[in-house]
Amino acid sequence: MINKHHVLLSKYKDIREHSAFLCLPLSIEDYGAQPILDASPPKWHLAHTTWFFETFILAPHCQGYDLFNPSFGFLFNSYYESFGDRVKRANRGHLTRPTVEEIYDYRQYVDHKISEFLANNRLDSHILELVEMGLQHEQQHQELLQADIKYILGTNPLFPAYSNGEESKKTDPAKAQFIEISEGLYPIGFEGPGFCFDHEKGCHKTYLHPFEISSSLVTNGEYLEFIQDKGYEKHGLWHEEGWTFINHNNIRAPLYWHFIDGQWHHYTSRGLQKIEHNDSLCHISFYEAYAYAEWKQLRLPTEFEWEVAASKLSWGMRWEWTQSAFLPYPGFRKEPGALGEYNGKFMINQMVLRGASEATPVSHRRLTYRNFFHPHIRNQFTGIRLAQ
Amino acid sequence: MINKHHVLLSKYKDIREHSAFLCLPLSIEDYGAQPILDASPPKWHLAHTTWFFETFILAPHCQGYDLFNPSFGFLFNSYYESFGDRVKRANRGHLTRPTVEEIYDYRQYVDHKISEFLANNRLDSHILELVEMGLQHEQQHQELLQADIKYILGTNPLFPAYSNGEESKKTDPAKAQFIEISEGLYPIGFEGPGFCFDHEKGCHKTYLHPFEISSSLVTNGEYLEFIQDKGYEKHGLWHEEGWTFINHNNIRAPLYWHFIDGQWHHYTSRGLQKIEHNDSLCHISFYEAYAYAEWKQLRLPTEFEWEVAASKLSWGMRWEWTQSAFLPYPGFRKEPGALGEYNGKFMINQMVLRGASEATPVSHRRLTYRNFFHPHIRNQFTGIRLAQ
Amino acid sequence: MINKHHVLLSKYKDIREHSAFLCLPLSIEDYGAQPILDASPPKWHLAHTTWFFETFILAPHCQGYDLFNPSFGFLFNSYYESFGDRVKRANRGHLTRPTVEEIYDYRQYVDHKISEFLANNRLDSHILELVEMGLQHEQQHQELLQADIKYILGTNPLFPAYSNGEESKKTDPAKAQFIEISEGLYPIGFEGPGFCFDHEKGCHKTYLHPFEISSSLVTNGEYLEFIQDKGYEKHGLWHEEGWTFINHNNIRAPLYWHFIDGQWHHYTSRGLQKIEHNDSLCHISFYEAYAYAEWKQLRLPTEFEWEVAASKLSWGMRWEWTQSAFLPYPGFRKEPGALGEYNGKFMINQMVLRGASEATPVSHRRLTYRNFFHPHIRNQFTGIRLAQ
Amino acid sequence: MINKHHVLLSKYKDIREHSAFLCLPLSIEDYGAQPILDASPPKWHLAHTTWFFETFILAPHCQGYDLFNPSFGFLFNSYYESFGDRVKRANRGHLTRPTVEEIYDYRQYVDHKISEFLANNRLDSHILELVEMGLQHEQQHQELLQADIKYILGTNPLFPAYSNGEESKKTDPAKAQFIEISEGLYPIGFEGPGFCFDHEKGCHKTYLHPFEISSSLVTNGEYLEFIQDKGYEKHGLWHEEGWTFINHNNIRAPLYWHFIDGQWHHYTSRGLQKIEHNDSLCHISFYEAYAYAEWKQLRLPTEFEWEVAASKLSWGMRWEWTQSAFLPYPGFRKEPGALGEYNGKFMINQMVLRGASEATPVSHRRLTYRNFFHPHIRNQFTGIRLAQ
Repeated sequence: MINKHHVLLSKYKDIREHSAFLCLPLSIEDYGAQPILDASPPKWHLAHTTWFFETFILAPHCQGYDLFNPSFGFLFNSYYESFGDRVKRANRGHLTRPTVEEIYDYRQYVDHKISEFLANNRLDSHILELVEMGLQHEQQHQELLQADIKYILGTNPLFPAYSNGEESKKTDPAKAQFIEISEGLYPIGFEGPGFCFDHEKGCHKTYLHPFEISSSLVTNGEYLEFIQDKGYEKHGLWHEEGWTFINHNNIRAPLYWHFIDGQWHHYTSRGLQKIEHNDSLCHISFYEAYAYAEWKQLRLPTEFEWEVAASKLSWGMRWEWTQSAFLPYPGFRKEPGALGEYNGKFMINQMVLRGASEATPVSHRRLTYRNFFHPHIRNQFTGIRLAQ
Repeated sequence: MINKHHVLLSKYKDIREHSAFLCLPLSIEDYGAQPILDASPPKWHLAHTTWFFETFILAPHCQGYDLFNPSFGFLFNSYYESFGDRVKRANRGHLTRPTVEEIYDYRQYVDHKISEFLANNRLDSHILELVEMGLQHEQQHQELLQADIKYILGTNPLFPAYSNGEESKKTDPAKAQFIEISEGLYPIGFEGPGFCFDHEKGCHKTYLHPFEISSSLVTNGEYLEFIQDKGYEKHGLWHEEGWTFINHNNIRAPLYWHFIDGQWHHYTSRGLQKIEHNDSLCHISFYEAYAYAEWKQLRLPTEFEWEVAASKLSWGMRWEWTQSAFLPYPGFRKEPGALGEYNGKFMINQMVLRGASEATPVSHRRLTYRNFFHPHIRNQFTGIRLAQ
Repeated sequence: MINKHHVLLSKYKDIREHSAFLCLPLSIEDYGAQPILDASPPKWHLAHTTWFFETFILAPHCQGYDLFNPSFGFLFNSYYESFGDRVKRANRGHLTRPTVEEIYDYRQYVDHKISEFLANNRLDSHILELVEMGLQHEQQHQELLQADIKYILGTNPLFPAYSNGEESKKTDPAKAQFIEISEGLYPIGFEGPGFCFDHEKGCHKTYLHPFEISSSLVTNGEYLEFIQDKGYEKHGLWHEEGWTFINHNNIRAPLYWHFIDGQWHHYTSRGLQKIEHNDSLCHISFYEAYAYAEWKQLRLPTEFEWEVAASKLSWGMRWEWTQSAFLPYPGFRKEPGALGEYNGKFMINQMVLRGASEATPVSHRRLTYRNFFHPHIRNQFTGIRLAQ
Repeated sequence: MINKHHVLLSKYKDIREHSAFLCLPLSIEDYGAQPILDASPPKWHLAHTTWFFETFILAPHCQGYDLFNPSFGFLFNSYYESFGDRVKRANRGHLTRPTVEEIYDYRQYVDHKISEFLANNRLDSHILELVEMGLQHEQQHQELLQADIKYILGTNPLFPAYSNGEESKKTDPAKAQFIEISEGLYPIGFEGPGFCFDHEKGCHKTYLHPFEISSSLVTNGEYLEFIQDKGYEKHGLWHEEGWTFINHNNIRAPLYWHFIDGQWHHYTSRGLQKIEHNDSLCHISFYEAYAYAEWKQLRLPTEFEWEVAASKLSWGMRWEWTQSAFLPYPGFRKEPGALGEYNGKFMINQMVLRGASEATPVSHRRLTYRNFFHPHIRNQFTGIRLAQ
């Protein structure tokens, strides 16, 4: 039991410290910005993930626990409407206080209390599940945090670098090939052991027709051909709403791409760089992924095809858009209480992404993971894999 | 051959005349209104369906055909972007000219030319398909026309009646029961003979887990219990976007319902009437259908479950919301040319409805028919059937 | 007394009939349209002016009067908030019922009752004032009616003509000269006898510096020079808000102007016509009037300068923008009751126009008349006269 | 000459340092926020005022001057469209870089260069005017800075204090009385010596009718009576646009007022405090000032009345709304070049405020000063003085 506690505590510390680590290159000013509604300020992520541990573990289960600051429940609640009014998402970027320093104090306070709590109590399975949930939740926000930081820096006219390290991840288009999967009834969904989110549960059978799926992601170079062939001007390739979206927002290339002095550049963690043709494409909306597939006279895989084929693929660099809408698995039921709000309430108007991105912690990756975003979202680390 | 022509011509006349018949109770003023973006003016429907026959049959295939008015292509094109600029959907209600009389002249002119064309030419299968397509298209618009007329009259503060006939359609809740369907691989999709739309094609196998589906639609009385239990105030029952939708629009009951002098009324074709508890519920959004199912601790069926069970159900009074997003069937390919824009470009952010409504022409009903609307739509004749 | 009644009745009939006369060229369809928020449907004008007589004269003063239809108070009230809820301005164009025929019945009914009432009662001065007010109000709406009809027809892609008569009104730029007015204390405002609106009252002294004012209005040809000199692209000529307005709405010429096959045309009552260079300019916003004056290194007159100079000018073809904001005269007090809402509540963010337009009834013209519109308004018959 | 330089340099340093002094209580986080479009981030003010000196003095007149950072022209230009693209006002709050530290470096760099430049050059009158202009400009921004800081802190749910000092400024309503001014021709406008803005120039005669003006500003206690008499619910007191404004934004009290536990509080520089009844009212829009005056059956003074009476008044605590629209004085001409954009382009849809507020530097106060804001603005230090 002590060992198990020890392992959990160590995992807790690692994951919690990683959030702060991701923010090391930030200036204080960067922590507070929310340049688009689809993003949240970095300091909000740091506080909200902390609020989760305080609200679901310390407050109800740790005797004598004093809230760090009672008003934080109001400020850092996200969508858990059971827990009362939250700050409107649109206003998160205007909250100059609490300061970054206060939020790091908050993290330290809660981390200390959680460590004590884990060390000194007999933990029943419910508590262990909540801790696990909190850590998975924090890892989800680490992904969003990285996307949001990139947006804050990448839309600043000065294009400040985030790091000086290497970034490039190449694919070799020469090796790209279609892998055949035969028809059949396949199991889909998570079937322990270990953690999964509510919407992965309910392992069930799905019938798949025979299909082929590409071993590689689409590259920048391949997507450039689509741009050069005027793919953004051929309405027949687009969903009606996608066509409206790109024209209304004057979109003619992936997010962060800039055509400067006759050459395509994009913002990367090292600042503005020339496009590498062999790198895998990133930061496209579902609408663009769909139009590209139409242009190739191919299609995106369904999330079920992806899950079945994934063991034969190399994945984990991009979240990969599928042609599946985010819907409940057979037998899906919401958890009781506030945690029941976790994923079920988002099962409308969003598309499923599979895999994991360069921003996904390794311990957070699994074949059954279902990510989901609205089809216009481009600031996540999204990519394209084709099927037929 | 003559006979076949004769049958087709007779069908053509019947369907075309039915559109005008539906408009008989209208005043000239009613023809031009577009009270919401989701609707179109009745006269626009009358002209657009006519434009379809002119553009896809007469103009390309009938030698020496003179367009009735060259500017009508601009005015009555809907979403067929291949055929050039269209009037912005938002402005359709401002087009006072051409007048209603001119539009009936247009219909007469095109009907006459089509009759001549059908009578005097050897018709290859492509032409026959186009005529069939035009008639199915007209029947689709007859549904929309009825929904739009109801909206124009039903949101007028004078609540004018559309007809004086009987309207009530009852269900008997006493007989409501769940029908069991066993697991298995079932065929889904259209497999001739006869007409179907592009998105019904590609008959394919789908695996279904065992499920039960209600023999009856939800009634007004049952839905009133949900209202009285404050279903509209319990955020846990709603999708996040549904919750925003009902609160932003202050929705607390189905469309057309009014609470007057302590009693629920609703606008019907006979004007304002008291709610009949045993009538089947109508005019609810997908969001409300979902929340109601959550409240009953049941769920909506998938479109596949519905199709498999439909032969055992009595249906055809309401379009029934399913929990399936509108997505392509395996192997779906767009038709080439402008007709390729038909349904594929709408396969995002919409939910499938199955069955048929009181406004659906009988010849337009079939088990494989897939209708689809955005989840907030309430002006169509929508209803709820539960599954578990 | 009988004579006086007779004269009033005759005036009543003339003015009321003129409203209907202005609508003679309309199709039934034209009566209901409201293509922009700044306009109202023609049938709304016809009903609202009638409602005014019913509400302020018949209902309170004519014993035993039966409202034509009690719901009309709700439908055709404009801004008289004292009289309860009104239909949102934005929804006026969706009211297909009451029909045009019913509204003409309403006019006939009220006209008949007013005639009886005027003929059979001893009328105290308060009643006579109310009748006068109602007629002046009707004449105001006749102006708006003509502007709104022009907008409905002039923004229709078919450009239907309103009449076949002559329209052209020329000015002779050769004769344009500046008239000098010397400094001094001048009386401003209405000082009987006869009718005026509340905001013209309070004849008072104003000191004017010496100034010069043009004898002529700016012509189309003169304004074309401004366009050709890229006046719409020189931000230094514009108010900040004017600059935003023209760019946001992509305005590069007066309303109704179209550049077709290398030549400027505009929509007129006879349909689309070539621009006549010597005609006086029409349909420009205050922003454009101001920018034009800046470009000429001149300025617009104040409303006080205009009033003092007007007896020496030929005016009455265009409403002329002044550089005066619409503000109360010294000693201005609102009338008590609902009529107190007449003009005072609009004394913010609007600019004064002086003179009268081609659409102004002759009996409605006077030197002290103050019209007012928001600075972006272009659908009224506005023009420019310069001063220095 | 050396002395004059010395005095100017000393004034330069004092004013420039005062901007930084005003920001001393801020956290780094506070510098970057822009919670409403009507405000700008504190760091933007600090940089923009510096950019003014760099752009109009150093760059054109100081030989060999190196721009601190060429991209700052793009970032910190406000409305000087002559100097190229500026960052959209709506995006100022998203610019996390340059950091606060870099902006203070920028200030230091420019201050150093200006000091050198002033010390080492023979300064012609044009340069001296530009320096004076830059300092007056900085003082204008000090006012806005204080209003914006108050908004950032005062709309934060934690209500952080800005200072711990005394704040209360009392008026004694017992002494309030109306001062009579007789009719006559009065001079209006600035007539040297010293600095004034372009829109104060053109000293000219204005005729005033006899009037009375209150010796005191309206107090919180007096305004509370208006609130308690349901002034916010009596549409007859309001401008049409004011009525829409307060209802659309649900305004029922001055900005920063909160009704907590049965008592009115407001946010002050010391945090949330109870309302002092005898303090002069602050943070009301023109709409509210007008409605209050209507309710008292009095009116606001014109800006001309105010200027004539001001020598007999105690003023300088609140900016006082007048009933005058912001319009050019007779003979007003824009300055040539970019500085010509200074005030003329704002002369539409804004109301004049006279006096000075608690946030106005003493050297910035003068009887002829004309401030102006849109009628809905409440975040400035506005108040009410009545006339009759």
